[in-house]
Amino acid sequence: MTTVTLSESNAPASVGVVTPETLVIDDPLTLTCGAVLPSYQLVYETYGKLNEQASNAVLICHALSGDHHAAGYHHEDDKTPGWWDHYIGPGKAIDTNVFFVVGVNNIGSCRGSTGPASINPATQQPYGPDFPMVTCADWVVTQAKLADHLGIEQWAVVAGGSLGGMQVQQWAIDFPSRLKHAVIIASAPRLSAQNIAFNEVARQAIMTDPEFHGGHFLANNTIPKQGLMLARMLGHLTYLSDDLMGQKFGRELRSGHVNYSYDVEFQVESYLRYQGEKFATKSNFDANSYLLMTKALDYFDPALEHNDDLVAAYAPIEAQALVVAFTTDWRFSPERSLEMVKALRQAGKRVVYAEVESTHGHDAFLLPNAYYEQVFAAYMRRVAVESAL
Amino acid sequence: MTTVTLSESNAPASVGVVTPETLVIDDPLTLTCGAVLPSYQLVYETYGKLNEQASNAVLICHALSGDHHAAGYHHEDDKTPGWWDHYIGPGKAIDTNVFFVVGVNNIGSCRGSTGPASINPATQQPYGPDFPMVTCADWVVTQAKLADHLGIEQWAVVAGGSLGGMQVQQWAIDFPSRLKHAVIIASAPRLSAQNIAFNEVARQAIMTDPEFHGGHFLANNTIPKQGLMLARMLGHLTYLSDDLMGQKFGRELRSGHVNYSYDVEFQVESYLRYQGEKFATKSNFDANSYLLMTKALDYFDPALEHNDDLVAAYAPIEAQALVVAFTTDWRFSPERSLEMVKALRQAGKRVVYAEVESTHGHDAFLLPNAYYEQVFAAYMRRVAVESAL
Repeated sequence: MTTVTLSESNAPASVGVVTPETLVIDDPLTLTCGAVLPSYQLVYETYGKLNEQASNAVLICHALSGDHHAAGYHHEDDKTPGWWDHYIGPGKAIDTNVFFVVGVNNIGSCRGSTGPASINPATQQPYGPDFPMVTCADWVVTQAKLADHLGIEQWAVVAGGSLGGMQVQQWAIDFPSRLKHAVIIASAPRLSAQNIAFNEVARQAIMTDPEFHGGHFLANNTIPKQGLMLARMLGHLTYLSDDLMGQKFGRELRSGHVNYSYDVEFQVESYLRYQGEKFATKSNFDANSYLLMTKALDYFDPALEHNDDLVAAYAPIEAQALVVAFTTDWRFSPERSLEMVKALRQAGKRVVYAEVESTHGHDAFLLPNAYYEQVFAAYMRRVAVESAL
Repeated sequence: MTTVTLSESNAPASVGVVTPETLVIDDPLTLTCGAVLPSYQLVYETYGKLNEQASNAVLICHALSGDHHAAGYHHEDDKTPGWWDHYIGPGKAIDTNVFFVVGVNNIGSCRGSTGPASINPATQQPYGPDFPMVTCADWVVTQAKLADHLGIEQWAVVAGGSLGGMQVQQWAIDFPSRLKHAVIIASAPRLSAQNIAFNEVARQAIMTDPEFHGGHFLANNTIPKQGLMLARMLGHLTYLSDDLMGQKFGRELRSGHVNYSYDVEFQVESYLRYQGEKFATKSNFDANSYLLMTKALDYFDPALEHNDDLVAAYAPIEAQALVVAFTTDWRFSPERSLEMVKALRQAGKRVVYAEVESTHGHDAFLLPNAYYEQVFAAYMRRVAVESAL
């Protein structure tokens, strides 16, 4: 392993200011659940330049509360870059000097692509709870439409973390010839009962909030703020590791002494309340979208239609894979990544696996980490060399 | 290790039908938080017979939602025995043919001892949110009053699991000469930041329920049912192990196929909703008591006043200790028990440690388990032999 020290002058840079684009697709889409979307739109961003052979395209699939904005800034004064900015940009692991990178918001979400907060053409009202269930398989179909639109017959790489990594698997299974490499990070071949249980508690928090109004909260000029807050607190708590929370907060008291009250006593309470509150009030995340995303996580299970045989589910795959897991990620643990690696190998696929030391739990896939960066960058360089990019 | 096969005729039996008793204490009690309870009552049960020297008494300390009813039945047709009935009774680990066992409900709880649902003599209304914060140190003081009343100068054993194990530690520290043995099961020397965070999510679920009314729900003829349900779902989920949930439910679908709806899809959802619903509607557990119990968990930290030095905190202890942990308990993991064992040993105390294989997570301390039973019974036999009982 070589440690590269970067001088200021050749430090990785940002893709800069980016502007989302919109693709409207007027073909009706029959979803896995049986419902039909008469039309839908996809909001996406691109970074870098598609080469003449269209052989350098990378698709980024987002996780639960993510979106198309994976890198760069939305305006000159924007302080918050895209969610995977540490790993996408000129000179970064996904080097935009080499690759043409596409980030897309999934349908059912709420960042511009058609979802529960969008207007239902049949009623001229927001879909709300009538927006149909969407699955990873549905998303992959819509992402393939975007690829068609962009003139990309085959992705050099499809990459994603967590729920994003499930979409990567779905791509490799459903469109074997349309990607050369699958980069699956902090993901799993399917959720465990415990994972589903955490999602269910979050859903119940939202759905039992009196402001939820059976999903018609927008029509009632309200939002289920408490439910969203609780769901986010719980999500946040489980995406961090016990170690990290211990290091970060320990049992530190907010006011330096015990007050014997229900106000914040420990710093960790303050942090969690702040995160929950911020998400519920400032993120504008649609509660129906939150529910849909957790259900998409629950439903992903490619082995189901193969008698729980993951090797059989992976049989159609043609892509090579990079699988990455993080030591303290207890919601998508290294064991779950190893299930995928083992099944891919048994199915005769070429796969590289890296277990990255990190104290950051599930969130590690979003955060700077030297070894993770090196593994990721090395893999992407191999992709570039093999494809003569 | 000897395996004893029990024939039907000498199989351990129940303590039978028991009747709770009440002790009213009219001395004012100054609590750790500074508040004063002018008077209070304790509800308790006893099993077995106190010997002449009063040397065979065992105190059982309960956990978050537990109570004084640790063994036996409340009437002839009662189908649900006390919460530790597997381990308390004639011929059981805590053998009521040998020991005189006392179960007591703690103040602040809601099973008969004075708590938030009790009438505040100053207002003639339920205390509600005005009931003061209680700590393990407060409970131990009240339990010592009960010991005085029963004529017990020194407990042969003080035993408890989880929050109960914290009370055992508190006893050993605060009243060194009043117990010969401390049995600390599935417990910790203090909660981690992650533990506190789980408690905080549960509290927020209760406190943000519109039916909570700032704790005055009884005065409003209602209860914060959704909050209690969410708190219990979350508690339940974290008291089970990932392994057990996998074995018990896996990804089994309730109706045998996917319905793409927010109704129950997976058996684990059904189970959790049932548990949450049952607790919120049928247990009559007071929401203010639930909050108080989680705070008592958060606050327990004997090392705090010793510069985080647990060895110093344990220095006054005279009791010998048995510490038991369960392999899949991730809320009170074996590592946490080992912290106690290590500190007790460094403080020069005599301590036996057992790590019990179990798939049942934190709940294991309540459930039948052959090795746990053998360790527990062997320790109690040693206590009996040493004290010539």
